[in-house]
Amino acid sequence: MIADSLVKKFKAIVGDDNAWTDATDLHTYSYDAAVVDPVQPGLIVRPTTTEALGRAVRLCNDNGLPLTVRGAGTNLSGGTVPLPGGVVIATNGMKSILEINEADMYAVVQPGVVTAKLAAAVEARGLFYPPDPGSQAVSTIGGNVAENAGGLRGLKYGVTRDYVMGVSFFDVDGNLVKSGSRTVKCATGYNLTGLMVGSEGTLGVFAEIILKLIPLPAHRKAMMAVFESLEKASETVAAIIAERIVPATLEFLDNFTIRAVEDFSKAGLPRDAAAMLLVELDGHAAQVEEDADRVEALCRSMGATSIRVARDAAERDRVWAARRAALSALAQLKPTLVLEDATVPRSRIPDMVAAIGRIAKRYDLTIGTFGHAGDGNLHPTILTDKRNHDEWERVEKAIDDIFDEALAMGGTLSGEHGTGLAKSRYLEKETSAGTILFSSRIKRAMDPNNILNPGKIIAAKA
Amino acid sequence: MIADSLVKKFKAIVGDDNAWTDATDLHTYSYDAAVVDPVQPGLIVRPTTTEALGRAVRLCNDNGLPLTVRGAGTNLSGGTVPLPGGVVIATNGMKSILEINEADMYAVVQPGVVTAKLAAAVEARGLFYPPDPGSQAVSTIGGNVAENAGGLRGLKYGVTRDYVMGVSFFDVDGNLVKSGSRTVKCATGYNLTGLMVGSEGTLGVFAEIILKLIPLPAHRKAMMAVFESLEKASETVAAIIAERIVPATLEFLDNFTIRAVEDFSKAGLPRDAAAMLLVELDGHAAQVEEDADRVEALCRSMGATSIRVARDAAERDRVWAARRAALSALAQLKPTLVLEDATVPRSRIPDMVAAIGRIAKRYDLTIGTFGHAGDGNLHPTILTDKRNHDEWERVEKAIDDIFDEALAMGGTLSGEHGTGLAKSRYLEKETSAGTILFSSRIKRAMDPNNILNPGKIIAAKA
Repeated sequence: MIADSLVKKFKAIVGDDNAWTDATDLHTYSYDAAVVDPVQPGLIVRPTTTEALGRAVRLCNDNGLPLTVRGAGTNLSGGTVPLPGGVVIATNGMKSILEINEADMYAVVQPGVVTAKLAAAVEARGLFYPPDPGSQAVSTIGGNVAENAGGLRGLKYGVTRDYVMGVSFFDVDGNLVKSGSRTVKCATGYNLTGLMVGSEGTLGVFAEIILKLIPLPAHRKAMMAVFESLEKASETVAAIIAERIVPATLEFLDNFTIRAVEDFSKAGLPRDAAAMLLVELDGHAAQVEEDADRVEALCRSMGATSIRVARDAAERDRVWAARRAALSALAQLKPTLVLEDATVPRSRIPDMVAAIGRIAKRYDLTIGTFGHAGDGNLHPTILTDKRNHDEWERVEKAIDDIFDEALAMGGTLSGEHGTGLAKSRYLEKETSAGTILFSSRIKRAMDPNNILNPGKIIAAKA
Repeated sequence: MIADSLVKKFKAIVGDDNAWTDATDLHTYSYDAAVVDPVQPGLIVRPTTTEALGRAVRLCNDNGLPLTVRGAGTNLSGGTVPLPGGVVIATNGMKSILEINEADMYAVVQPGVVTAKLAAAVEARGLFYPPDPGSQAVSTIGGNVAENAGGLRGLKYGVTRDYVMGVSFFDVDGNLVKSGSRTVKCATGYNLTGLMVGSEGTLGVFAEIILKLIPLPAHRKAMMAVFESLEKASETVAAIIAERIVPATLEFLDNFTIRAVEDFSKAGLPRDAAAMLLVELDGHAAQVEEDADRVEALCRSMGATSIRVARDAAERDRVWAARRAALSALAQLKPTLVLEDATVPRSRIPDMVAAIGRIAKRYDLTIGTFGHAGDGNLHPTILTDKRNHDEWERVEKAIDDIFDEALAMGGTLSGEHGTGLAKSRYLEKETSAGTILFSSRIKRAMDPNNILNPGKIIAAKA
C-alpha cells in the first residue's frame, strides 16, 4: 500500500534491516491487547537513533501517512492498533537507559526501555521506580507514559504521570520539543510534559523521558486475607482506607478470579474463598509492623476467615507473581476477554462490587472482578466470545451499565487503561461537549494533517 | 478605556457592586510581586458564581478585551500584571471550599480559596495538603495552580502539580471544560489538568479544582544547624540527600538572609552564622527519630557549630514563621528586590551557592541567598534600586549569568515562580525552538484572539 519509492526513503533513514513490509510482520503489528478489530499497517519502521526517529516522523507527515507508535502493544484500549496501510514505529530499537542519577534520584531513558528492566536497574542501586502496570515484564516506558499506565501501587505511590519529570519529543514536523527538567521543581514554560502523558501518540513522538526515582522502602510485609463473602472483603477495603492506613498495594480478587489464577499459576491461593485481599505494606520497619497489626485486626473484625502473612520474600513474590498473572489466567478461559477499568472514589468500592454483581445477573454474563481496590480501580472482566452476536450485544450493554454506575459514584471510565479506540465514544459522557471541543482543537493544532495515531482519544467523525 | 456600554454588560453579569473602574481600584490591580512595570487595566470584575465567571470570560472574548485572572497577586514573574486597558477578573468572590472528602481524601475548591485556609481546614480533619508556597497566608489555590506554585516541602511532597487531581475551567468562548477526576487514577481523555497547571491564565479560566489530600504525618521534628561557612552548609545539604534521607523541608539561609530575617522577626536566629540549615522531618515517630539522629550526626561531622532541636510546636512554628518572612524582611532593605528562582539538581547545590558568590563579586552586587536547598531550588536575592541605571544593568547581567550557571548544571530557569513576563524571553535558552513553536501553536489554537493573559509564558512578538 505504501509505494516502494517511499519505503526506500524510510530505509534510507532507519537502515534496510529496520523497515518491514512482509505480511507476517504487518500482521504481527495489527493488534494490541484490547478487544478491537485488528488493522493491517503498510510498513513497520524501527529507528535506532533519536535523529532517525525524528526524520521518520517528518517523512510520515510529509506524505500524509498515518503513524502509530508502538512499544510492547500491551495496552488495553486499542491505542496501538494502527491505521489501514499506515506506518507503525516500533520503539524497541531505542531501549537504552541513558542515565541513572543516584544523587539526584532520576533516570533518563529512551522510550523502548522495558518497565521491569528499569525497575530492576534502579533497585540494584537502592532506588525505586514505583509504577508497576500488570504488563511491566514486557511493557515499555514510552508506552507507559503515552498511556499514563497505572498498576498495583497507585494507592500509595500514584501512577506513571507522577514520575515523569520531563520529556523530549518530536512534533509532527519532526521538531524536537523539550519540557520539564532533571530538577524536582520546574515551572518553566507550559507543562507540556503533563499534556504529553496519556496523549496516546496523538500529539508527538517521545524521544527521551526523565523519570523521578525515590529511595527504596526499607521494609516490606505482604499478607493475604480470605473472606467468605464479596461484601465483607470490599467493606474491609473501605475500612482500611477509612483508618488512614496507606498500603503500597491493596488488591481484591473474587472467587472467579482466584480459581482462574490458581489453576494457572499453582501459587497456593484458596480456591474456595469467596474473595480475598492481597495487602503489601512498605516503609520504615516500625511503621510497617504497626500498620500490619492494624490491617490484620481490621480484617479479623470484618470477618476474614483466615489471614496469612508471607513468611519471606520468596513467598511474597510468588503470590504477587500469581496476582500479576490474573489477566493471562483469565484470558485462557474463553475466546474473548473484556477487561474493564471503571474506577470509583475508593470508599465506593463496596457499592461498585455490588453493582457489578447486579449487572452480571441482569445480562446473564460471567464477570470476574479483581483489581486495585485500594485506589478504587477495579477490573470487571467479562469472559465471552465475540462471535456469539447475541451475547456480545449483552456484553456491550453491560459495559455501558458499568460506566454509568462508575460515573454516578463520582468515578471515571478509565482508571489506567486509557481512552484509545475502545472508550473514545464515551468520553463526552464523563466530561463535557466543551472538553471534546478543547481537546479536538489541541489535536488539530498540533497535527493538522491528522497523521498522529488518528482516531485515538477523540473519536473519528462519522 | 472600556466603553460605558460594555462596562454595563459586565455589571449585568457580575452585579453593579462587582465591576470597578475607579482609578484607585485600577491602580491596585496594576502590579504583582514581580519586578515588572505596573500596567493599568480598564476594568476589574469580581464574579461570585461559576456561571457569571464563564459569561465574563465570553464577554471579554467577544469584545477582544485582554483578560488577566488574579488571585492574591503574589506571583513573582509578572503573571498577574494586566494588559493596558484590559480586564482583571478577581477570584476572591469565589472562595468556597465546596467539599472535603475525608474517606476519599480529596477537596473540591473554588479558585479564590486562600491556600493556608484550605490547609488549616483539612488539617482539622487529620488530613494534609502539602504545597506551601511562601505566600500561602494570602495566596489562592487558583493562583497556585495557574503558577504551579512550589514551597518549602517540594523535596518530600512535590509541588502544586502533584496535588491537582482535576480541574474544570472555561475556555475562551466560555465553554466549560472538565478534566481529571475525584479518583486517584484517571486515564480518560487528554490530561488537560496537566496542561492547565502552570499555564498562567493563558489557556482558560479555572472554575473548580479537585485537590488530592494525604493523611497528616503523625510526628514532626524540626532542627536548626549553624555553620561557619557557606560551603559547609551547602555540602551538608548534599550529604543529607546522598544518605537518602528525605526531610519534609531542608532550607538554607546565608548570613545576609539570616540577619535580615532576624532583624525583621526577632525569632532568635544566630545573627553571626555564616549560614544555617532549617530541617524538618515528619512521618512515623520511629522514622523521624532515626532520621533526626542521622541528620544531626551528619551536620556535626560536616562541621556544624551548633544544632538546636525545636523543643515544642511553638518553637518550631516560630522558626518557620521567621523563615517564611524572609521575602518581606529582605524587601524592606532596598527599594528593589529581585528574587530569583534558578534551580539545579540537588547534588549541585554547593556548586550553585559558589557560583552565586562569584557572580555577586563579578558585578559588585549584594546577593542574599536562601531557599529550598533540599530540592535544588535556591532564591538568590538581589537588593538594588531599579532607578540606579548603572546598577540595574549589572543586575540584569547577573541574572543572565545565574540562569546560564543553572542551565549548565542541568537545572532550570524557574523552579516555582513561573515564566510570566519576567522569564519568557529566556524560555528558548532552556528548551528549544521547537518548544516555543509547539507552545505557541497551543496558545493560538485555544485563544485565537489572544485575549487570555497575552504575553505571559510566550513572549509577545516585537
